[in-house]
Amino acid sequence: MFDPKAFIENSIEEIRKTVGKSRVISACSGGVDSTVATYLVHKAVGEELVAVFIDDGLRREGEPEFVVRVLKDFGIKNRLIDAKAAFFAVFKGKTDAEEKRKAFREKFYRTLGQVAKEEKIDYIVQGTIKADVIETVKGIKSQHNVLSQIGINPEIYGYKILEPLRDLFKPDVRKMGRELGLPSEITERMPFPGPALSLRVLGEVTPERVAIVRKATEIVEEETRHLNVFQSFAVLHNDKATGIKNGQRLYGDIITVRVVDSEDAVAAKATQIANESLRKIALRITQEIPTVVRCLYDITDKPPATIEFE
Amino acid sequence: MFDPKAFIENSIEEIRKTVGKSRVISACSGGVDSTVATYLVHKAVGEELVAVFIDDGLRREGEPEFVVRVLKDFGIKNRLIDAKAAFFAVFKGKTDAEEKRKAFREKFYRTLGQVAKEEKIDYIVQGTIKADVIETVKGIKSQHNVLSQIGINPEIYGYKILEPLRDLFKPDVRKMGRELGLPSEITERMPFPGPALSLRVLGEVTPERVAIVRKATEIVEEETRHLNVFQSFAVLHNDKATGIKNGQRLYGDIITVRVVDSEDAVAAKATQIANESLRKIALRITQEIPTVVRCLYDITDKPPATIEFE
Repeated sequence: MFDPKAFIENSIEEIRKTVGKSRVISACSGGVDSTVATYLVHKAVGEELVAVFIDDGLRREGEPEFVVRVLKDFGIKNRLIDAKAAFFAVFKGKTDAEEKRKAFREKFYRTLGQVAKEEKIDYIVQGTIKADVIETVKGIKSQHNVLSQIGINPEIYGYKILEPLRDLFKPDVRKMGRELGLPSEITERMPFPGPALSLRVLGEVTPERVAIVRKATEIVEEETRHLNVFQSFAVLHNDKATGIKNGQRLYGDIITVRVVDSEDAVAAKATQIANESLRKIALRITQEIPTVVRCLYDITDKPPATIEFE
Repeated sequence: MFDPKAFIENSIEEIRKTVGKSRVISACSGGVDSTVATYLVHKAVGEELVAVFIDDGLRREGEPEFVVRVLKDFGIKNRLIDAKAAFFAVFKGKTDAEEKRKAFREKFYRTLGQVAKEEKIDYIVQGTIKADVIETVKGIKSQHNVLSQIGINPEIYGYKILEPLRDLFKPDVRKMGRELGLPSEITERMPFPGPALSLRVLGEVTPERVAIVRKATEIVEEETRHLNVFQSFAVLHNDKATGIKNGQRLYGDIITVRVVDSEDAVAAKATQIANESLRKIALRITQEIPTVVRCLYDITDKPPATIEFE
């Protein structure tokens, strides 16, 4: 049985021992994992920690403001880095899923490395959890925050990595968050991938295409909030399909709605949603987003699918 | 109120008057429309008609054999043209939906024109119905068998077109089929587009990709037969997605399942299917087709979507 209180006490001691008198930054995306890791390290080193939120232009609606507010509420020093243009620049012309992941990862670490230099720190905290480690080892995906396993030496970016949650599964991370006194808006949050909406735009990642999937994501989240599912989101296809809008033929966009039940993200079931709810989601998405003519619902479990598309 | 008996009698008279002593071929795909048109003209001109089934490599499993058997059973002279390689050749390298439609149409009319020359005929029968005419006029799609409206002059191919069903909607075509004594396997058949599975392979149409969507189509038809829907089929995406098969990551194929209720194809509703049935379809498709890792269900009505994807 996982004991969050004991784990927190041990972690704090270990973090203090590892970090010593060094200063630390934490890459905090607002997700459960990285926010819990940030709070934990804040408890251990206090003012020596600066939480960094990188606005890569790939976040959900209102997310940058939300994360900064949460960090401020808890008195954690923080910096918001506007890197939107820089991230879209590295995605330009890239359509291959693995190339996109690599481009994101490299830009992410370079940006963080720059902040690390400015802040004169030695350690960076990351919210890596056990499922990330397992899947990277098995080759299911190359998780962007499990560096050593994919042959990236963080020292070339000028710092060392601290991953205090790497032995935990998601439910235990949530327990820790509750024990640390984080707001339920954070601890009960659904998982959100590091490379964010870039994974949910099949094909090239542009500001226009991210805006489409961001809006669709907002609708899906609103319409599935009451279901308390493990994860729910929207994906924009690169494929197009015929449709009719205002009586005219439109070769338009396709959005897939993905909703899953899961304990730990290692396996997942496509959530069975009432037909009326699905109809409403399809109606809203096609009515509120002018380019979208078609909505699909993902009916595949993991395995054989994964939760995300890329 | 539509009177199939009277319509048949009038049509037969009109066809005889139009055709005179000419010989006729009919492009019979096995669909309700073209088969009813074939039978009607057979009643009018008897032995002067040769029904032609062009095997373009894009038909459903077992379809060429089925159509030839049905024609033989009714004593209609017929020819099966094996044009599989020729059709795949024209699709090579084409990914744009409208280009694919045009390539299909041109190859179709050239192939039929060749048969027309060999058979020394003047008229070709086609199963064009009212919905095709309306949608071509409105620019929703360029229906391959509404030639004059899209600026194709059939005479350059060496023949004239006979479209005895062009004023009818689908339900009346079915009534005519029943009145003509066609087997219910034909009269109650779901609609199937002229360019066949080429519309249901997004991106390039190759023999391998058609084989995938053909197998998926067979599974969808088997699993939805009891629902008596207007139309049900599978679409192969050009986009790919991550999945896991035999414990290994696989960047694999995506299949969308499309099932609709409709009266006349002008408007349609995405059929509400029990979750258990959808699960079974997804399981079968991902288990029986090695490259497929993900199954989606289309939840969009027409409008704003169309029934087909291209």
